[in-house]
Amino acid sequence: MAIGVKALGFSFVAHFLGIAGAVMVLVWSIGFRGGLAWEASNKNLIFNIHPVLMLIGLIIIGGQAIMSYKSLPLNKPEKKLIHLILHAIALILGIIGIYTAFKYHNESNIANLYSLHSWLGLGVIILYGIQWIYGFVVFFYPGGTEPIRSESLPWHVLLGIFVYILAVGTATLGYLEKLTFLENSGLAKYGPEAFLVNFTAIVTILYGTFVILTILSQGPSEDDYSYSAI
Amino acid sequence: MAIGVKALGFSFVAHFLGIAGAVMVLVWSIGFRGGLAWEASNKNLIFNIHPVLMLIGLIIIGGQAIMSYKSLPLNKPEKKLIHLILHAIALILGIIGIYTAFKYHNESNIANLYSLHSWLGLGVIILYGIQWIYGFVVFFYPGGTEPIRSESLPWHVLLGIFVYILAVGTATLGYLEKLTFLENSGLAKYGPEAFLVNFTAIVTILYGTFVILTILSQGPSEDDYSYSAI
Repeated sequence: MAIGVKALGFSFVAHFLGIAGAVMVLVWSIGFRGGLAWEASNKNLIFNIHPVLMLIGLIIIGGQAIMSYKSLPLNKPEKKLIHLILHAIALILGIIGIYTAFKYHNESNIANLYSLHSWLGLGVIILYGIQWIYGFVVFFYPGGTEPIRSESLPWHVLLGIFVYILAVGTATLGYLEKLTFLENSGLAKYGPEAFLVNFTAIVTILYGTFVILTILSQGPSEDDYSYSAI
Repeated sequence: MAIGVKALGFSFVAHFLGIAGAVMVLVWSIGFRGGLAWEASNKNLIFNIHPVLMLIGLIIIGGQAIMSYKSLPLNKPEKKLIHLILHAIALILGIIGIYTAFKYHNESNIANLYSLHSWLGLGVIILYGIQWIYGFVVFFYPGGTEPIRSESLPWHVLLGIFVYILAVGTATLGYLEKLTFLENSGLAKYGPEAFLVNFTAIVTILYGTFVILTILSQGPSEDDYSYSAI
């Protein structure tokens, strides 16, 4: 599973898009939506933590974790450790981000878990957790036997790509859902905030695309190239 | 780009999910939403054509086109013709389906092209059209030279997978957008129609997943297996 081009260029584009996406979601939540707060009488400030942590945590840091084998000029054990730690950070930020959505709903008397965004989001975080624990046990500590590792690896890669694409898709559902609520409450459909949110969604999709392109391409050494072959 | 399992089982699951999705979108549009019409004083009946043609056309028939190399026990020239014709049908139904969305908006004085769903949908149909024309010219008639074909094939496969995943993602945005509008107009958030729409979206995602799993797996002959290697 590889295309005959170098991963490094794709990973640089991904880094740039990741920074752009992080800035855009902060401009939206702080500049347009009034900022972030864990406790507040204006419950919207609690909600605002949700898109920030999901994008910067689960999507951007999670994407860096996925690319680490192809984007870093390090040895395999170091890259594995970075892959593991970045995914743990992404997962923890994702869980906190999901918690803030429930916190906002509960403190604002809004129903939980009726939308496709919430259903898929729960599915993503559960699969992400299962994938992390399986990866930790089989590939890190205590580690599976060689046949288990080599049998598991393509499925680990494939399930990881699936969960990541589902996470990016779930994020786009979140942007559309929130923006539709705001537009129903009077926000201009062609105004600057609507364009910012839609373009943040497009940057998110492009970031995910370049993360996947990076891992389908050739890493810094021949060894890495064959490593990720499905 | 292949996993060491047979494609046939995955393709059967995809066929079953495709039939289920087609039935579900018809039950929604006809049973819950009043049916389909090209001309009607109730403009909602014009809209209803949109999800039916996008799901059955672009997603389901498009998915069958993608799988055809791995799911059919035929020779390569026949499979290429089927791939080409099914994608043409998917593209035409997709264009008519998008036209009905504009028709509904225009006849109901609803703004066009402000939502992420509409932006991505336009992107998908344009890329789908470019991909089809490029495939026709290079792989069918008049046909490119051997170096052009072999250089193009992995990118044709990769862009095709990208456009298809984007199409499935755009469809899920459509389900969420329409359901959010209906819920804002009073539809029960946990009622049977809301569940039907959300589960239709989940069946759509699962169909797309099994289409991709089919093409990543081993086709009926060794030749097909190597054919789709990226």
